[in-house]
Amino acid sequence: MTERAAFPLFPHRHLLGVKDLSPSDIELLLDRADEAVAISRQSEKKTSTLRGRTQINLFYEASTRTQSSFELAGKRLGADVMNMSVSSSSVKKGETLIDTAMTLNAMRPDILIIRHASAGAAALLAQKVGCSVVNAGDGAHEHPTQALLDALTIRRARGKIARLTVAICGDVRHSRVARSNILLLNALGARVRVVAPSTLLPAGIGEMGVEVFTTMKEGLAGADVVMMLRLQRERMEGAFVPSVREYFRYFGLDAEKLKAAKDDALVMHPGPMNRGVEIASEIADGPQSVIQEQVEMGVAVRMAVMEALLDPRRNPEGQAA
Amino acid sequence: MTERAAFPLFPHRHLLGVKDLSPSDIELLLDRADEAVAISRQSEKKTSTLRGRTQINLFYEASTRTQSSFELAGKRLGADVMNMSVSSSSVKKGETLIDTAMTLNAMRPDILIIRHASAGAAALLAQKVGCSVVNAGDGAHEHPTQALLDALTIRRARGKIARLTVAICGDVRHSRVARSNILLLNALGARVRVVAPSTLLPAGIGEMGVEVFTTMKEGLAGADVVMMLRLQRERMEGAFVPSVREYFRYFGLDAEKLKAAKDDALVMHPGPMNRGVEIASEIADGPQSVIQEQVEMGVAVRMAVMEALLDPRRNPEGQAA
Amino acid sequence: MTERAAFPLFPHRHLLGVKDLSPSDIELLLDRADEAVAISRQSEKKTSTLRGRTQINLFYEASTRTQSSFELAGKRLGADVMNMSVSSSSVKKGETLIDTAMTLNAMRPDILIIRHASAGAAALLAQKVGCSVVNAGDGAHEHPTQALLDALTIRRARGKIARLTVAICGDVRHSRVARSNILLLNALGARVRVVAPSTLLPAGIGEMGVEVFTTMKEGLAGADVVMMLRLQRERMEGAFVPSVREYFRYFGLDAEKLKAAKDDALVMHPGPMNRGVEIASEIADGPQSVIQEQVEMGVAVRMAVMEALLDPRRNPEGQAA
Repeated sequence: MTERAAFPLFPHRHLLGVKDLSPSDIELLLDRADEAVAISRQSEKKTSTLRGRTQINLFYEASTRTQSSFELAGKRLGADVMNMSVSSSSVKKGETLIDTAMTLNAMRPDILIIRHASAGAAALLAQKVGCSVVNAGDGAHEHPTQALLDALTIRRARGKIARLTVAICGDVRHSRVARSNILLLNALGARVRVVAPSTLLPAGIGEMGVEVFTTMKEGLAGADVVMMLRLQRERMEGAFVPSVREYFRYFGLDAEKLKAAKDDALVMHPGPMNRGVEIASEIADGPQSVIQEQVEMGVAVRMAVMEALLDPRRNPEGQAA
Repeated sequence: MTERAAFPLFPHRHLLGVKDLSPSDIELLLDRADEAVAISRQSEKKTSTLRGRTQINLFYEASTRTQSSFELAGKRLGADVMNMSVSSSSVKKGETLIDTAMTLNAMRPDILIIRHASAGAAALLAQKVGCSVVNAGDGAHEHPTQALLDALTIRRARGKIARLTVAICGDVRHSRVARSNILLLNALGARVRVVAPSTLLPAGIGEMGVEVFTTMKEGLAGADVVMMLRLQRERMEGAFVPSVREYFRYFGLDAEKLKAAKDDALVMHPGPMNRGVEIASEIADGPQSVIQEQVEMGVAVRMAVMEALLDPRRNPEGQAA
Repeated sequence: MTERAAFPLFPHRHLLGVKDLSPSDIELLLDRADEAVAISRQSEKKTSTLRGRTQINLFYEASTRTQSSFELAGKRLGADVMNMSVSSSSVKKGETLIDTAMTLNAMRPDILIIRHASAGAAALLAQKVGCSVVNAGDGAHEHPTQALLDALTIRRARGKIARLTVAICGDVRHSRVARSNILLLNALGARVRVVAPSTLLPAGIGEMGVEVFTTMKEGLAGADVVMMLRLQRERMEGAFVPSVREYFRYFGLDAEKLKAAKDDALVMHPGPMNRGVEIASEIADGPQSVIQEQVEMGVAVRMAVMEALLDPRRNPEGQAA
C-alpha cells in the first residue's frame, strides 16, 4: 500500500456522477483499483488506509451487491462501516432526506455512500454535508462506481477501452447503469452503441454520442463487448414490453444473437440477472461471460474511490470543526 | 486518551435513568464527554479503550439516530458492536424479553444497550444479566443519554447549567426525553419550565419541581433555552391535539413565539423533527438552533458513558465466570 | 492462542453436516472449542487468528441466536463480518440462491455461513464457491454447529459422551437439530433415544440407530440428558398436535416427568423456548438446566469451527485467484 501515496491527488471531494470526471480522473481511479484487486486476493485482505475513518452506507433502495461491495471495500481499508437501511430507520417517521443526512453528518462521518430513488439526491446531499459523498445510484440518473467497475473489467480483459465497440442492450430508458456507462465509455474513446426496442429508449438518446439500434443482430455486429441491462420486473408487463417471452426472443442474449458479435466478445451484466429474460443461462455462465469478474472489480473500484476521496494529502487534519 | 484514566471511578454499573445519578455523577460524565468530542473531530477517530469488548444494541423500537450514535460511539472506542433489531429476530417467534436477554448475556457481552416500548424494561434486564446495561429509551419513562447530551450541549454553549431557565415545550406527557431532562436539569440547578396544552401534561407534573405554563408566550418569557419535543404522529389527531395546524399555531416554535425568550436563547430538539408541526423550518435551521450540535454531542456522551461503565479499574478481569 | 497451531489439521474445507465427520474430527472441534471458551470469558475477548479474513453470514431464515453467535465468533477472532439477511436483499428481486452465492463469492470471502429453508442448500453452495461453507441449518436436514455445541455442553458437564443415555424429545420429525444430534451422539458412543408422539416421528427413524419411545415416562427413564426440541408455532395446531395444552400435558417437560430421568440429568433446549409448551418455566430456569451454557458454548464452537476450516496450514496464500 505504501506506493499508493504516489498516485496523483484526485481532484474531487465527491463522486456524484461520471459526467464530472475527466479522462485522467477515470484513469487514475482505474489505476488505483488495479492495485486494490490484489488486496482482496490475499489471505489477509486488510489495509489500514482508512483506519479510524467512519463510512456510512445510507441505502434508500435495497441492494445486495452494491451495499455489500461498499461495506467490504470499507472494511478491507480498515474503516468503521455503519449501514443505515431505511426500512428500519426514522425515515419511516417522516424525516426528510436532508434532515437524515444532516443528522448523520453531525456524527462526523468521513464518507457517506447514498442510494436513492430520486435523481439528484446524492448531489443535494453533497451540498449539505461536510464529508465526502459517493453516489451509489440515484434514480435513473447515474451510478458511477458501476461504470467504473465495468470499465476496469473491460480494460483488464482487453488492455484498453479506446476504439472498442461496446453494445449496451436492453432497458436503456430507465437505466442509470446505461447512462453512466455511456458517459464513461465515450470519455475513454470507445464506440458506444445502444440496442433496445424503441419503447425502452430514452428521449434525447440521439444527443448522447451513441449509435442507436433496434435489433440485436445489427447492434451486436462486430462488437467487442456486449453489455446487457437488467429488465426491472415492474416493466416486464404492460406498456414497455409485450411479454417476457417476446422480450427474450427479440432482445434476450442467447447463443444465436451473440454470434453477431466478435468471436471473443465479452459478455457483461450488472446483476442481479433475470435468467431467461434478458440473458440465457448458457451465456451468463459461458466462457465469454465476465459477470463474476465485474463483481470482483466492484470491490476494488470502491476501495479505490474511497481511498482517492479520503486522500490524507487533501485533508490531513480530518473534517473541519 | 491516557489522561482519561485520571477521571474518578463512576460509581454505577448500569445507566438506567437520570434519577439514579448524583450531580457529581452527571458532571463526571459531562467532563468525560467533553474530552470525547475531540476524538470524533480527528481524522483517525478511533481509540482502543474498549478493544475486545462486546457491545450489543438491542432495539425493540427503530431509531436512526440513537442506534447509530451508540454504534459509532462503540466503534470509535474500538469495541465489537453487534446490532439486534427485533423485527428480524426470534422475538417474532414469541420469545420473551428476558429469554432474549439471557441468551445474549450467555454470549458474554460487556454492555447491552436497550430500547424498549415498556417503562422499566432496562431495569428488569439489568437484574438478569451479568453485563452493564444502558437504557436507550424505555416507554415514557427515561432516556438518560438524551438528557446528558442536551446538558452537554447547553454547558458547552453557556458554560454552565445552574440558574439557567430552560423551557421544555410540547408533548411532555408521553416524553421520556422531557422526564429525563427535568430530572437532570433540576439536579444541576437549572430553573425548569414545561409548556404544553393541558392534554399533553402528565398527571403529577406539579411534583416534578417545574413551573407549568399553558401558553408559549408566558412559558418562553426570558428563557435561556427553548427545548422543543417531538409530537408523535399517532397523537397528532384526536384526543390530544385538535389538528396539526392548530397545534403549530399555538405550540409550534416560530420566530414570533421565540421573541419571548432571551435574544440569544438556544433552540433545541431531540429529533427527528416534524417541521411545521412543533417547529418552523426557519427556526430549526436558524442561528439560535443547536440541533446539529446535539447530535454531535450524542456520540460523545455515549462514548463517555460506555467508557465510564466499563472502567477497567472496576473489573480488571472482565465479566465473572 | 499460540498453542492452537498445535491442533491437528481439520481434514475438511466445509462443515455441511455431522454425517461427514469422523469421531476424531468431532473430538478435534470440541477440543478447540474448549480452548475458545476462555477467550469469551476475558475482558479483552479478541484474537487476531482471522484478522483480515472476510466472513459472510447469509441467512435466508431469521435467527437471533445462531446469526449472533456466528457474528460474535467471527468478530472475536478478528474477522471482518458482513451480515446478509435476505429480507433486505436482491433475493426479493428474484435472484436465485446460486446467483447470490456466486456474487458474494466473487467478493472473495473466506467463509460463508448459510441458513436456508431447503435441505441441501449448503452443500449446493459448497460446490459452487471458492471459500469455506458452514451449514447453519438447512431445512429439516442438518444443523451441525448446534449438535457440536450440545456435545460440548454435555462433555464439559459430564466429562464424556460415550455411554451416556440421551433422550431427544418432541418434534423429531421436522428437526434438523434432532437429526444432527442423533448422528453426532451416535458417533461418539452415546445411547440415543427419541421421545415423541407418533405424528412427530420421521419415517425411517428405525434406521437411525435410536430407541423410539412414545411416552415421556418410558423415554426418560434413567436418562443422563434430556434434550427438548422446539415445537414450531405452525405445527401447534392441526394435523401434528391436537392442542398446545394437550401437548404440554403429555410431552412438555415438567418436574413430574423429569423425575423419571437420573437425579442429576442435564436439561437442554436449543432455543428459542416456548415456555409452557415444550418445557415448564421452573425446569427451564431450574438447577438441572444447562440452557444458558449451551448458548455460551455456541460461540466457542463456532470460533473453533471457523478457525479449523480456515487453518493457515491448509491455504497459506489465501483463496486461489
